[in-house]
Amino acid sequence: MAGGSPFSEDELIGRFLAPLAGEGGFGLKDDTALLSLPEGEELVLTVDAVVAGVHFLPDDPPGSIARKALRVNLSDLAAKGAAPRGFLLVLALPPGWTEGWMADFAAGLGEDAAAYGCPLLGGDTVRTPGPLTLSITAFGAVPQGTMVPRTGAHEGDAVLVSGTIGDAALGLALHTGKAGAWAAALTEEERACLVDRYLHPRPRTNLAAAVRANARAAMDVSDGLVGDFAKMLRAARLGGEIDLALLPLSTAARSALDADETLVEAIATGGDDYEILCTVPESGVAGFVEAARSAGTPLTRIGTVGAPGGGLTIRDGAGERQFARGSYGHF
Amino acid sequence: MAGGSPFSEDELIGRFLAPLAGEGGFGLKDDTALLSLPEGEELVLTVDAVVAGVHFLPDDPPGSIARKALRVNLSDLAAKGAAPRGFLLVLALPPGWTEGWMADFAAGLGEDAAAYGCPLLGGDTVRTPGPLTLSITAFGAVPQGTMVPRTGAHEGDAVLVSGTIGDAALGLALHTGKAGAWAAALTEEERACLVDRYLHPRPRTNLAAAVRANARAAMDVSDGLVGDFAKMLRAARLGGEIDLALLPLSTAARSALDADETLVEAIATGGDDYEILCTVPESGVAGFVEAARSAGTPLTRIGTVGAPGGGLTIRDGAGERQFARGSYGHF
Repeated sequence: MAGGSPFSEDELIGRFLAPLAGEGGFGLKDDTALLSLPEGEELVLTVDAVVAGVHFLPDDPPGSIARKALRVNLSDLAAKGAAPRGFLLVLALPPGWTEGWMADFAAGLGEDAAAYGCPLLGGDTVRTPGPLTLSITAFGAVPQGTMVPRTGAHEGDAVLVSGTIGDAALGLALHTGKAGAWAAALTEEERACLVDRYLHPRPRTNLAAAVRANARAAMDVSDGLVGDFAKMLRAARLGGEIDLALLPLSTAARSALDADETLVEAIATGGDDYEILCTVPESGVAGFVEAARSAGTPLTRIGTVGAPGGGLTIRDGAGERQFARGSYGHF
Repeated sequence: MAGGSPFSEDELIGRFLAPLAGEGGFGLKDDTALLSLPEGEELVLTVDAVVAGVHFLPDDPPGSIARKALRVNLSDLAAKGAAPRGFLLVLALPPGWTEGWMADFAAGLGEDAAAYGCPLLGGDTVRTPGPLTLSITAFGAVPQGTMVPRTGAHEGDAVLVSGTIGDAALGLALHTGKAGAWAAALTEEERACLVDRYLHPRPRTNLAAAVRANARAAMDVSDGLVGDFAKMLRAARLGGEIDLALLPLSTAARSALDADETLVEAIATGGDDYEILCTVPESGVAGFVEAARSAGTPLTRIGTVGAPGGGLTIRDGAGERQFARGSYGHF
């Protein structure tokens, strides 16, 4: 009952979180959880933390905060070709949380855990004098030796990206009231769609098998397409290029860009996309694109991996482009 | 470079944390880590978060903060009979951290990771306007079906605890300048020993195999012996009793208790012990105690598991005892 919380830690866990516990979670009544793997599989591990005021707005809907915290981890797993197996939740709660807030948080988390087949296995709940902080560790499984590394790009590989790029960056600008005049050029539905893409990333879990079967290098785009592609190239010590004219844009992002062509920088570097960026041998492009289409999410070719040490070249219709900021660093 | 940090996130990771990365950690250059298990083993998962000003003092030595954050997780694994396999680190850093602080933090963490055979596999580093917050997810392995649950106590089981109880609670009082007159009755060495037990828990990794082979129920003592034993009994819906006169005490804790007999409550309920509390069939006590002795850490019998629904009875030489506070809740 310390800190004015309406519940003790055990009550909070028992009432709001234990109902989400999956097999191996022991109803959250042990200090640990158990995870077994079918023979021949190995475990892909990822952890991401989000802090109120840094990674999300303190007044965002609690269900959205929960969903995003889980989904950014599911996005990492999908980019590695891994199928979700479960997650651990660390919740550092500031004073003054309410029962209603926690109920909404748990409801959003539980719905996503069910939808993505990724049950809660355990966690820790602590109080903090600082902002609400969430940390989720997620576990995925891949057949042994098939995890797709960030480092695997080869010279000549095609560079592809899933879904659409830039929606979340524009959505954040709208969500925080910092959008320019372009906002007026969009329909209400387009604005809502962009904000939704910021609040609710769409981990490409449905592409995991195709990524595993086809991609040589993959990562999810979280810090901005340009910066993340540069990281991927550095990891392989290779150059490469992307063509901004090829970036897949949603109808809403296209409307925004038509209204203000300078938005191309926000689109290409803004981050929070949670799409999969990957490279694939030229011969594999057609089959990979078709497999993704069958899985329900488009893949678009946006560039090519170049020679060793060549650096990243960004092209658009008018020639080469330079951006002041390669990517958004949350740090 | 946001928030006045002397390093970008990538620089921080590359300089201080990547040198600690173990196999499967990809030099911390991927967003994920990979963990494979020998056939027939399964994975024990645990996560614990600590917040400056709540779980440790902001001015504690950075190496001690790092060690404790890792060791409390290793303690959970040991109590389940699991051998450490690796960990993920989440570091939420407030503004103003220094290179020297981070170097000391990483040095302490790296020494413990090596000493306990538990390499860093990955993590996340974020900035926070709040207090320094650390969250560690640790992984251990057990042969399939052998994890020792919290729930497994049987009526008539002997209750045993490892090492000594109460040192950390007394050490915290000394460390924070809140110790009573009893502090003057201790030698400087005794005081230092108690503070060290608070700052540097000793996970009983060396007992994991014996616990797995012998214990029916086990957990580590983190929130206080009395409260944690009550939790174990509730999990099994059984009663039980412990005898305070049987609690294993260090020389320093014995000196303190001789000076002030009311300290028995702090010793029995104060927490941060990170000893293993477990139950074992009467017939297995002698063999278990001998196995622990061979492994280098004593086990002491302190009570018995009772009949269903009987509640927890605490005895001392004078009869039954009641404590106002069963355990210390960090929440």
